[in-house]
Amino acid sequence: MSPDRLSTTFSALADPTRRAILARLIAGEVSVTELAEPFAMSLPAVSKHLKVLERAGLIKRSREAQWRPCRLAAGPLKDAADWLEHYRHFWEESLDRLDEYLGELQAQEQEERHGRKD
Amino acid sequence: MSPDRLSTTFSALADPTRRAILARLIAGEVSVTELAEPFAMSLPAVSKHLKVLERAGLIKRSREAQWRPCRLAAGPLKDAADWLEHYRHFWEESLDRLDEYLGELQAQEQEERHGRKD
Repeated sequence: MSPDRLSTTFSALADPTRRAILARLIAGEVSVTELAEPFAMSLPAVSKHLKVLERAGLIKRSREAQWRPCRLAAGPLKDAADWLEHYRHFWEESLDRLDEYLGELQAQEQEERHGRKD
Repeated sequence: MSPDRLSTTFSALADPTRRAILARLIAGEVSVTELAEPFAMSLPAVSKHLKVLERAGLIKRSREAQWRPCRLAAGPLKDAADWLEHYRHFWEESLDRLDEYLGELQAQEQEERHGRKD
């Protein structure tokens, strides 16, 4: 079974080096050598990660320039974000409940402090 | 090297069955038997997926009830969405550029149509 598009995206993102590479590309096009610099990694190791990102459609490599710069391709990231969006009310609800709880704690504390004063 | 939290989350999401399980839990708590129903899958196979989701902190299994219902835990999904948020301007920019291009095409078409009428 060939993995579906969303699985390929999430799988490509499930690695800290690959996420760091994408973060590096936020600033613009970068050569493979430049990309490899901040990582204690051989060029072939970085190239392997780039291939995973390229296959997932997360980066594009220019065929025009000799140095074949990499740039970010955000389409699959949008699809991943759209998928996550369905769950937003769950984490917002949890934060609301936390807020509510903290509010109650604060009210209780104030009440106790006033009680002591009386 | 133990995988970081975000990698564990993305890795857990990189499977269509696991994403379908999470989607099923949007409606509320569900038993493992009920979760297994829509999938042409054995209970042990479903349990394996549930373990991955549980280890990633994406679901919680109640220890109170005999049937140990599963429920969604959205915290890691929020972290994943927060990470993707850094890239939003990239896909919004691409959509803006597409809009611009479509607008230009439309203007060109209208111009040609008017040209033909004259």
